[in-house]
Amino acid sequence: MTSGTRTTAEPAAVARTFAKEELRCVDALWRAANYLSVGQLYLMDNPLLTEPLSARQIKPRLLGHWGTTPGLNLVYAHLNRLIVAHDVNMMYVIGPGHGGPALFANTWLEGSYSENYPEVPRDAEGMRTLFRQFSFPGGVPSHVAPQVPGSIHEGGELGYSLAHAYGAAFDNPDLVVACVVGDGEAETGPLATSWHANKFLDPVGDGAVLPILHLNGYKIANPAVLARIPREELDALLRGYGYAPHYVVGDDPPTVHRRMAATLEEILAEIRRIQHAARTGRADGVRPRWPMLVLDTPKGWTGPHTVDGVPVEGTWRAHQVPLARVREDPEHLRLLGEWMRSYRPEELFDPAGRPRPEVLALVPEGDRRMGANPHANGGLLVRDLRLPDFRGHAVVVDKPGCCLSEPTRTLGRWLAAVIESNADNRDFRLFGPDETASNRLDPVYRVTDKQWQGEIHAVDEHLGRSGRVVEVLSEHLCQGLLEGYLLTGRHGLFDCYEAFIHVVDSMFNQHAKWLETARRLGWRRPVPSLNYLLTSHVWRQDHNGFSHQDPGFVDLVMNKKPEVIRVYLPPDANTLLSVADHCLRSRDYVNVIVAGKNHGPDWLGIEDAVLHCTRGLGIWEWASNDDGHPDVVLACAGDAPTLEVLAAASLLREHLPELKVRVVNVVDLMRLQPDTAHPHGLADREFDAIFTTDRPIIFAYHGYPWTVHRLTYRRTNHGNLHVRGYTEEGTTTTPFDMLVRNDMDRFRLVIDVLDRVPGLGARTARLRQRMRDRRIRHGQWVRRHGEDPPEVRDWCWRW
Amino acid sequence: MTSGTRTTAEPAAVARTFAKEELRCVDALWRAANYLSVGQLYLMDNPLLTEPLSARQIKPRLLGHWGTTPGLNLVYAHLNRLIVAHDVNMMYVIGPGHGGPALFANTWLEGSYSENYPEVPRDAEGMRTLFRQFSFPGGVPSHVAPQVPGSIHEGGELGYSLAHAYGAAFDNPDLVVACVVGDGEAETGPLATSWHANKFLDPVGDGAVLPILHLNGYKIANPAVLARIPREELDALLRGYGYAPHYVVGDDPPTVHRRMAATLEEILAEIRRIQHAARTGRADGVRPRWPMLVLDTPKGWTGPHTVDGVPVEGTWRAHQVPLARVREDPEHLRLLGEWMRSYRPEELFDPAGRPRPEVLALVPEGDRRMGANPHANGGLLVRDLRLPDFRGHAVVVDKPGCCLSEPTRTLGRWLAAVIESNADNRDFRLFGPDETASNRLDPVYRVTDKQWQGEIHAVDEHLGRSGRVVEVLSEHLCQGLLEGYLLTGRHGLFDCYEAFIHVVDSMFNQHAKWLETARRLGWRRPVPSLNYLLTSHVWRQDHNGFSHQDPGFVDLVMNKKPEVIRVYLPPDANTLLSVADHCLRSRDYVNVIVAGKNHGPDWLGIEDAVLHCTRGLGIWEWASNDDGHPDVVLACAGDAPTLEVLAAASLLREHLPELKVRVVNVVDLMRLQPDTAHPHGLADREFDAIFTTDRPIIFAYHGYPWTVHRLTYRRTNHGNLHVRGYTEEGTTTTPFDMLVRNDMDRFRLVIDVLDRVPGLGARTARLRQRMRDRRIRHGQWVRRHGEDPPEVRDWCWRW
Repeated sequence: MTSGTRTTAEPAAVARTFAKEELRCVDALWRAANYLSVGQLYLMDNPLLTEPLSARQIKPRLLGHWGTTPGLNLVYAHLNRLIVAHDVNMMYVIGPGHGGPALFANTWLEGSYSENYPEVPRDAEGMRTLFRQFSFPGGVPSHVAPQVPGSIHEGGELGYSLAHAYGAAFDNPDLVVACVVGDGEAETGPLATSWHANKFLDPVGDGAVLPILHLNGYKIANPAVLARIPREELDALLRGYGYAPHYVVGDDPPTVHRRMAATLEEILAEIRRIQHAARTGRADGVRPRWPMLVLDTPKGWTGPHTVDGVPVEGTWRAHQVPLARVREDPEHLRLLGEWMRSYRPEELFDPAGRPRPEVLALVPEGDRRMGANPHANGGLLVRDLRLPDFRGHAVVVDKPGCCLSEPTRTLGRWLAAVIESNADNRDFRLFGPDETASNRLDPVYRVTDKQWQGEIHAVDEHLGRSGRVVEVLSEHLCQGLLEGYLLTGRHGLFDCYEAFIHVVDSMFNQHAKWLETARRLGWRRPVPSLNYLLTSHVWRQDHNGFSHQDPGFVDLVMNKKPEVIRVYLPPDANTLLSVADHCLRSRDYVNVIVAGKNHGPDWLGIEDAVLHCTRGLGIWEWASNDDGHPDVVLACAGDAPTLEVLAAASLLREHLPELKVRVVNVVDLMRLQPDTAHPHGLADREFDAIFTTDRPIIFAYHGYPWTVHRLTYRRTNHGNLHVRGYTEEGTTTTPFDMLVRNDMDRFRLVIDVLDRVPGLGARTARLRQRMRDRRIRHGQWVRRHGEDPPEVRDWCWRW
Repeated sequence: MTSGTRTTAEPAAVARTFAKEELRCVDALWRAANYLSVGQLYLMDNPLLTEPLSARQIKPRLLGHWGTTPGLNLVYAHLNRLIVAHDVNMMYVIGPGHGGPALFANTWLEGSYSENYPEVPRDAEGMRTLFRQFSFPGGVPSHVAPQVPGSIHEGGELGYSLAHAYGAAFDNPDLVVACVVGDGEAETGPLATSWHANKFLDPVGDGAVLPILHLNGYKIANPAVLARIPREELDALLRGYGYAPHYVVGDDPPTVHRRMAATLEEILAEIRRIQHAARTGRADGVRPRWPMLVLDTPKGWTGPHTVDGVPVEGTWRAHQVPLARVREDPEHLRLLGEWMRSYRPEELFDPAGRPRPEVLALVPEGDRRMGANPHANGGLLVRDLRLPDFRGHAVVVDKPGCCLSEPTRTLGRWLAAVIESNADNRDFRLFGPDETASNRLDPVYRVTDKQWQGEIHAVDEHLGRSGRVVEVLSEHLCQGLLEGYLLTGRHGLFDCYEAFIHVVDSMFNQHAKWLETARRLGWRRPVPSLNYLLTSHVWRQDHNGFSHQDPGFVDLVMNKKPEVIRVYLPPDANTLLSVADHCLRSRDYVNVIVAGKNHGPDWLGIEDAVLHCTRGLGIWEWASNDDGHPDVVLACAGDAPTLEVLAAASLLREHLPELKVRVVNVVDLMRLQPDTAHPHGLADREFDAIFTTDRPIIFAYHGYPWTVHRLTYRRTNHGNLHVRGYTEEGTTTTPFDMLVRNDMDRFRLVIDVLDRVPGLGARTARLRQRMRDRRIRHGQWVRRHGEDPPEVRDWCWRW
């Protein structure tokens, strides 16, 4: 059913390098995968077409994507050939993940599917199930999802394939990650910048990525940009990205097979040459120009050429199901039968539905099958990190609040030790968008470099051809690389300015969904958690303004399944150490840690910190004077709120010593939820014991105040809960002015207490006035002097 | 203080084309801006250095960014020269927006700043204020923010400058938008794909964008990728993006001035040639290769070369303040004085602090000043859209729920009329990531095309060199272009799959913050709202799976100031029309509309729809039987929840006719908040009247259930509120199965009612069992047949 001929000039050598027998087998494999793909889109029964096709065998809802599928099948078949010919350790990443049918088909053919899903064996009954389950209620989704063996990349949102591929290749020197990039996906921002990941990949210590730009010309309803620019322009673009592009263009299967096989041979040889040169020291440190493939074949290739009088193959109309009314329209049904039979299924499958030897001749065995490559089920390979005792890096706290330290710098020192301890294993990396030093994790540079393959100048510091830190000014790339790294069984941490982590909101969503699904699949083994360190946070954006102030990422995170998400707000250096240690040990979570980088008071010695973090929240007795019967609860979560709450408690102790104040600090935000809502949730009885059932609670929270309400609305004492937080007031100003603008400063908190504790009314009018005066006076000082008043900077604690 | 010499070979012609006098003036302007920039970073007083610099004149907190600033000043000075020489209608977009000092300096010099801020006049006292206010509490932020005249682009997050510039250029054929892209910003995904916006800009009907890639080599703490690849590779990249790059390289000011002036002359001539050819029909429809500039000058140019023995100028150390301890270290203080005097302020300003004539010789006048270009204060130019009466496009509703229509297709028909009505004004555009047809807005193609400058093939449909629809598979680019279009005073709508709008979460945040700030500035005039149409939503992802299911964008939106955000969930076609009409008339908001594209029941005739949308929420009497005294309130927001609630009400009427059920539908989600929290909020009295103070409320909500709790936790009857919604359960399946998986189907809602209305207990055990059976039976049907049971598809309404 192929239309016309459109093929690049073919070097004479090509035909010779590729034996006729191989061509026949690779074509058989391709046809088999195409046949199985169409079957998945359409059939409920009669998988081998042993009887005439009838409407009742057709699925009532035809849901899936054909357009990209034959191209993916071609790639898979030829990669198989390459793997067998050269014993390549290869995994795949499929950007056009809508092409689920292709990957279900190929993993079923190679057997890896049935090994994970014995209920779908490699025979006629299994084929029937394979077809029926696709895009069917209770079956499998239409995308290359976690359900697909060999995948670390969900199709759907588009944009992250190449970043995932590079992340998988890091520290896997023998691995080749073949990554298909759709020409639609290529228009996305994240993908557009991911080409530059070759500026980071170390040809010595890392593996190779083989990008395959699949130029099939169309998206859902439009041509693709890269398919409609002059070919010289595309070539310049890819060379500008630093690649050596190879082209396979055509629509005549035998010709394309020959070209494809020959080109992949060339590409693999180039990869090997580059790696050999680099690994034997003969590359002189020059960044290699890695090969890549541009595959230009028709969208919906081998599908119906024309349907109802309009062209389908080779156009956007082939994007989903080319024949849409197969159940209702006998002509469509006839065309479907013709289409499926065009693959000559009888040559491909024996009467029992088993693939014939010719089909399997070029399929690799065991772990060499891409659906069985253990890297793609990273939990199989993961080793626990060797975590040096963080207690050795703790700050000494003689008295709460009396010494200052920079929490993230303290963490940085421990992370340096973590990097050293795992240097041999090469399975831990830090990722950051040019902010690792700004975020004060720079102690890590004592033991490692930033990995960088660009030019290095004399003035540069801490740049090396290999190193444990990857810095690129793209949160998308940081996140994508880290995801690829984690899903292949390694460990990592992404440090980012708090406000700009929203750049990857959508990537977080997709990764969390991946984890939610993967956890339910028995054969997928747990992988290390995705750890975020958010710092340079809303309350301390000293060099920056309003655009840098947004603490809302946590709200997004909490929309995902409680089983996979964790949020921590350590108030000081030692609690940060304890939390980070916990997160780096965990599996299958997304851990969000929000912490300060600026000098701030230390509250807890290391053993108290560990205890407090283990509990997740607790009463700070040393700051409380309630003797078990508080008049008011002052609660806090986050470093800035904790400081203000403790200052307010201190003020109250000074001015209103008879008031019984309980101070509660929350490190693990999920503790606030009921235990029925989150695994970390506190039982109501415990919550009530801490927050009381009837006393006013003044809660100072790091982010938007309603977040705390959303977590606690079912709690007994919720009616008495009053939350202060960030109310979207900000600019470039002093830390204390930020607090005043958002009504979370210590004086305001004292006034809140006076307003809410019954019976304090008239008796405290003078105190209320004094607090008001101090707020105003401090505000004036700030505006006059451009810095915070000394009293606020050097607070006198009264415990 | 310039180091060495590093300059590209200079064509002999250049020196001749550029008069010596002009060179002197442009250099004076540049020095003046540099002087004022340093002053802003450091000085509280003594702006003209009329007395020896002392520590007490130095700001206590040195907050700002020097590194990018001298380059921005150079660009501004030379663009001024160009504007004056050729009377160019030009505006600027500054990607390296950290360089706030440059723009404050230049707009103060040209007078546009003082016109908007008379308290900062163009004299010594004004200069003192200009210096003092920068990054100072109560003053102005450190970035190119809304406060800066002439800006439509906030510095900070990075990535969107080029998209904003292209958006501004659309439909402004005489405008040239000069856009500085930092080499750090160039690493971001959104920027990386924004280069391709030239595939959409129509040289006839649109203006020109002049990208200026500022290659100053370093980010915060790292070299920039594009500065560390071979120059040939960079050139290939930019040519691959479709541009004709020009280069200005150097660190010797006179030489750079000559080159810069000559190169800008060439570039402007090229732009004019391209436009002339296209507009006189001599371009043969070939996409033009627009010129661009690569400016390679040192980071922190003209600043201190070396500080404390380490290189600063030309390195990342110049990123923020090159001299950090000016107050404490006399040597730093001395260096600062030397640095500032190196600009020879006495030649630049008269004793009264006014810029001398030489400085102003090349500054344009009136609206030609970039700080005064009316396009950059779009509210000055905006015209109301001519909105044809949407009633003419309404669907007829004889009886609620008895006819079906596709809401977005109905909207599409009205949007076609909107496009026709405003064809002459050319000030309305639709933006979509290849989803406009999928989202069923394709009726617009009857009256317009998708604008596209790539190759056009015979098979293509609705592609044209000009057209009102812009489709590119990048939500970032769609959003960025639309923002640029709106901020320059035009109108638009962004239609997007609901799940993937999270791709632009961060851009939404930044735009909302822009609006929040701009509204407080008297001189910024209101601009058209940013309108989102989110469809292909969580409940109807027929071809797609879990990755396409995320209704959380609304939660993000609600974190921003109530003054700027609106959320609408029209339940059917006519309410969608009414809401869309309202949104397209509004100013300075972000409107989020979530609507269905699939066939769904119509509930309200058009007049009822208008009334209902005006109220924002209300009791649907025709679906209720409560006579003012309900036993239970069934509330809903969103199309799928509305259908389920009405089906549940219908079931209850059938099986439990004595139960008094009130049905409430919510279109305007912000009505749920108290009036103290949002301008659309309902007063408690009204809320109580609708939702009662003591009856159970079963609320079916389109998104995550806790969103409704977060909005209503202060309401009297919140304790009785039970919310159903999306609980992150999904895959490729049927619509009804999605509801069952998330416990929001009609049968579950009936069970919820039975569980919560007191006294129904034993009496309804049989009904409860029947509902449970039907859920199970329907689930079985779905898994067996692969589609929803007929009963659910063709519901029998009992009103």
